Amino acid sequence: MKGFKFSAVEAAIKKPGRLDLALIFSEVPAAVAAVFTTNRVKAAPVLVGMERLKNGLCQAVVVNSGNANACTGRQGMDDVLETSRVVAEGLGIPDESVQVSSTGVIGQPLPMERVRMSIPALIEGLEGGTLADVSRAIMTTDTFPKLEVRQGSASGVPFTIAGVAKGAGMIMPNMATMLAFIVTDAAVEPAWLKKVFKEANDASFNIISVDGDMSTNDTALVMATGVAGNPPITAGTPDADTFAGVLEDLLLTLAKQIVKDGEGATKFVTITVKGARSAAEAKQAAMAAANSLLVKTAFFGQDANWGRILAAIGYSGAEVDPDKAELFFDGVQMVKNGVFIGGDAESRGTQVLQNKEFTVTVDLRLGEGHATVYTSDLSYDYVKINADYRT
Amino acid sequence: MKGFKFSAVEAAIKKPGRLDLALIFSEVPAAVAAVFTTNRVKAAPVLVGMERLKNGLCQAVVVNSGNANACTGRQGMDDVLETSRVVAEGLGIPDESVQVSSTGVIGQPLPMERVRMSIPALIEGLEGGTLADVSRAIMTTDTFPKLEVRQGSASGVPFTIAGVAKGAGMIMPNMATMLAFIVTDAAVEPAWLKKVFKEANDASFNIISVDGDMSTNDTALVMATGVAGNPPITAGTPDADTFAGVLEDLLLTLAKQIVKDGEGATKFVTITVKGARSAAEAKQAAMAAANSLLVKTAFFGQDANWGRILAAIGYSGAEVDPDKAELFFDGVQMVKNGVFIGGDAESRGTQVLQNKEFTVTVDLRLGEGHATVYTSDLSYDYVKINADYRT
Repeated sequence: MKGFKFSAVEAAIKKPGRLDLALIFSEVPAAVAAVFTTNRVKAAPVLVGMERLKNGLCQAVVVNSGNANACTGRQGMDDVLETSRVVAEGLGIPDESVQVSSTGVIGQPLPMERVRMSIPALIEGLEGGTLADVSRAIMTTDTFPKLEVRQGSASGVPFTIAGVAKGAGMIMPNMATMLAFIVTDAAVEPAWLKKVFKEANDASFNIISVDGDMSTNDTALVMATGVAGNPPITAGTPDADTFAGVLEDLLLTLAKQIVKDGEGATKFVTITVKGARSAAEAKQAAMAAANSLLVKTAFFGQDANWGRILAAIGYSGAEVDPDKAELFFDGVQMVKNGVFIGGDAESRGTQVLQNKEFTVTVDLRLGEGHATVYTSDLSYDYVKINADYRT
Repeated sequence: MKGFKFSAVEAAIKKPGRLDLALIFSEVPAAVAAVFTTNRVKAAPVLVGMERLKNGLCQAVVVNSGNANACTGRQGMDDVLETSRVVAEGLGIPDESVQVSSTGVIGQPLPMERVRMSIPALIEGLEGGTLADVSRAIMTTDTFPKLEVRQGSASGVPFTIAGVAKGAGMIMPNMATMLAFIVTDAAVEPAWLKKVFKEANDASFNIISVDGDMSTNDTALVMATGVAGNPPITAGTPDADTFAGVLEDLLLTLAKQIVKDGEGATKFVTITVKGARSAAEAKQAAMAAANSLLVKTAFFGQDANWGRILAAIGYSGAEVDPDKAELFFDGVQMVKNGVFIGGDAESRGTQVLQNKEFTVTVDLRLGEGHATVYTSDLSYDYVKINADYRT
């Protein structure tokens, strides 16, 4: 995309042979918006990033994998400032225009010597690098890189939005161990960019769950350069609808890829709750089912155990009338008026659960609230990956 | 214990060769108190039990394992009433004096023909049965029966409290897939029995977590006959302190056994949070750590991954100042002022986690609030047990 350059190198933060330090550079100062983890324990780069976001402009994002730089105290803050200083100097831009991002193990200091030494090569690499390199460099336990590109047009001027993301574990709404970096050449009015990016996040990264754990490092960030030359997009215009639609589609696709690549995941499950008293209660109910270990292990076991789903929704806090609920696996109705429907539903429901992807729909029949969330199952491999993570 | 009789039979609700229907009978009407699941989806026996509790007296508890009689609609309610009717008739007591309890698979009708046929033998068995038989008959995926007996004295009159419990999965505060039946020959003023039983539950069954799932059937129930002959124990007396202490000790011992027998558990972990702004926030923080999959898999992997514990506490909702927190594995300090303490803490902490039982202590250094909870790790076997539960 015109106006952006990309680079990634091996800085030996992760095991040898893997890219682990990446750079996104905008040739012009770009409007920026971001959402960060709501965890009270925030990694050093998140704390610095939140502060720098206030000036509304960004020209570079430097991100490492393999080390979260979280719970690293004063040293961690110094390392963020030092990283951004060296990058800013190399690029000839102000320190404050650099966002730093990290993902990986918590509680270990960044190997700053190796980071510092790798930055010159990282900057040189901007000449030949691609966003695909960045998508690989930010992976931790991800098994595949996540990169999406979309085109649109604003007032007749074509624009591009591209984004990369990483996920795997610690995935849960309100930003999980998830990083996403979105770049666009569209001109977007900064205040509205902030608003539309938050809304697109609520409709994508904030409706997925792998394990219900929320990380210290989650960050989703968008940079908009205006290099495309369109009149700046702002609220309440047809261009705004177009841009919002394209952005949300891109984010949702990345979010679904994160679920599909959830640690040890063998299933991709869409959970829809409708007929709740409100949309908020519908989401609460769907998330309770998505995060229930018993529901997730039943998915892994391909067991059409609808009772566990109703039990999870029952403790979600959403209003439930057990005598009204209906439940479907894809098109197969399992439950009517709160009880098993009988017939061949058991065998047909079990067949649905043998697919790699399926939908659970619960109709509470109490109101108009509905919500959809995306989740994975819980397998032996999740336990294995996370029991051995640091070794 | 004088005044109580017990019995258990095979009603072929579970696999052959296993006791699955039990009866506790008090020769005199007993004061009764109980706490039930707070799940909105409540099993039929819970709904009936809550209603019958209002008359304050109970003379028999009939309990089956292998089938939860939950999400079974009108039929489920009929089956509870029919079960209690047949038991009441056999014992010559009013229907309303019978409490029914169930645990097992959700959503399948009780095999009523087999239950009905088994009741005469169940009642005959009261002549030779023991509470130990009951403790075995209520097991589902439990690997060992849980039975405790305590002695005390009230105004110089000796009394006994005995209790059985079952747990295994769906274990989480506010009553999990947990049943507990407590019997005592002490005379206890009914209103105070209710109060002290709730308090003892809050200090035992409600501070444990195996998997964060809350069941539709959880019930803890106490019956007090007064056969011991002591003057009825009531609030604000030395006898009350004695009774409360003995009761809480018995319940906490049963609760810890439930954690030790958690599905697939290989570790028994005590998590203490102190220095929180309030006791409620301390419990919130401790429970978030206890329920985090990443924390639990790290315990299973014997990985001294303190960062995951701080991250979980960070999203618990409790106030946390990441620069103040301290963390210990048993006596080994890992974290000071929010950062790793260095030295040989890593190897010494890892050594602690190789034990079958250990304590995690987090001091938030913000206030006086403290709380302790008990939890297990998350192993391959948890996934295996729950992926295959219904097959």
